[in-house]
Amino acid sequence: MSLESWEAKKRRPHRYDATLQGHKLTIAYRGTDFAGWQIQPGKRTVQQCLEEAVEKLWGEKISVQGSGRTDTGVHAHGQVASFNARRLHNATVLLRALNANLPLDVRVVKCRLVSPAFHARFDAKGKTYRYLIWNHIVQDPFTLDTHYHMPRDLDLAAMRKAARLLVGRHDFASFTSNPGYERETTIRTMKRATVVRDGHALVFHFTADGFLYRMVRNLVGALVKVGKGKITVTEFARIFRECRRSAAPETAPACGLCLMSVRYAKAD
Amino acid sequence: MSLESWEAKKRRPHRYDATLQGHKLTIAYRGTDFAGWQIQPGKRTVQQCLEEAVEKLWGEKISVQGSGRTDTGVHAHGQVASFNARRLHNATVLLRALNANLPLDVRVVKCRLVSPAFHARFDAKGKTYRYLIWNHIVQDPFTLDTHYHMPRDLDLAAMRKAARLLVGRHDFASFTSNPGYERETTIRTMKRATVVRDGHALVFHFTADGFLYRMVRNLVGALVKVGKGKITVTEFARIFRECRRSAAPETAPACGLCLMSVRYAKAD
Repeated sequence: MSLESWEAKKRRPHRYDATLQGHKLTIAYRGTDFAGWQIQPGKRTVQQCLEEAVEKLWGEKISVQGSGRTDTGVHAHGQVASFNARRLHNATVLLRALNANLPLDVRVVKCRLVSPAFHARFDAKGKTYRYLIWNHIVQDPFTLDTHYHMPRDLDLAAMRKAARLLVGRHDFASFTSNPGYERETTIRTMKRATVVRDGHALVFHFTADGFLYRMVRNLVGALVKVGKGKITVTEFARIFRECRRSAAPETAPACGLCLMSVRYAKAD
Repeated sequence: MSLESWEAKKRRPHRYDATLQGHKLTIAYRGTDFAGWQIQPGKRTVQQCLEEAVEKLWGEKISVQGSGRTDTGVHAHGQVASFNARRLHNATVLLRALNANLPLDVRVVKCRLVSPAFHARFDAKGKTYRYLIWNHIVQDPFTLDTHYHMPRDLDLAAMRKAARLLVGRHDFASFTSNPGYERETTIRTMKRATVVRDGHALVFHFTADGFLYRMVRNLVGALVKVGKGKITVTEFARIFRECRRSAAPETAPACGLCLMSVRYAKAD
């Protein structure tokens, strides 16, 4: 599929019942005990928990759409989900009622009544992910589920130099794990790719108009390899330019990753 | 027991084998999955885990003494423990070797070779505890095990006013839960009792020369009651002066509490 047709598909309006009320939820979850976002038979997933809470309140099965999937163990501070249903409660009552019917490791942090035309996935204009590394000889018992432990010193300056290469409109094919994606464009625009030290932690932020499958974890895996001095910034740049996954280093573990926010047009 | 004899007891030197090497460990643990510090038959405790790690390295059972007990679910960033044993490794090797034999929710963060006269409990001159409250309508899925959730607004100014009354040398009998402590003095010197807002969290710090059983959790329970407006600062002061536990409000949950540091004489 060409870039044009992929972008056209993103713009294509989805079918919806205009008589229903649109609901936009901002959701935080600790991904540790979830098999990711998407419903899968016999597994505990975030989407499943949300659809069960919605069904309890409305008394019927209603599909809840996320801005995108997150993998097993990946966290979210600001995942966005949407669904259409008859108007039942105002946003404040709904926030409390949904949380009362959700397990404590997933929380609706914001709830808005929106147009039924709003769709959390199709209307998403960009996302920000954070990745956390605990970069100290002694692991921290309080961050086992949220930080990737990396005991040895990393060359932060080299990692930053490599991260800066990612900013702009590029083909990120070297950093996706899913061969299925090869049929779609792997071009994305990266707005921000930063890494800072915060005490014993390294904090990465990536903002782009969209992310490929496992892209952030693959980027962090490659940047860590730069930080360890196993590849140079020049080699990182070459891997990036090669545009095929087989060229890139390993995938960083899921536990360090967190979907921070999803960007929509102002009207949403 | 009079104050004098209690203090004399604290100063009394303990018996030790001067031919052995003293070891001072600073330990962090996530208390969630521990039945507290102290060894109890059939329970998972921090002291048990440490003694097992020490036994693995030295090939014999060696008693490890903490600066004091912590309850089930209470955390530590800077618990201190000591033991005497024949000299086996330097401090750096020992830190790694102990951590290699400990579960991930307890970590030795510092290791020092000290005089065998050093005793983590008897030589402790003071401690600092932190207590965390998540003070927001929506609970945070990432702080379930470390913060006490309090959805309603609290009057921070009133809580601070009450906390200031605690500073100085006072009888804290109203804030201990253990009748067994009545035989000892309940007088302590509080150096610091503060509460600040940090985003949606409230952060309490208490530094004193010693703490009674459940004292911090009882203090926080009473301060929260002030914050809710259920008792006035004047009523809090009256409860404090009454010097009996029955006068004081409820105990705040264990999960918010963390032993931050233990103070020793400079030589230790």
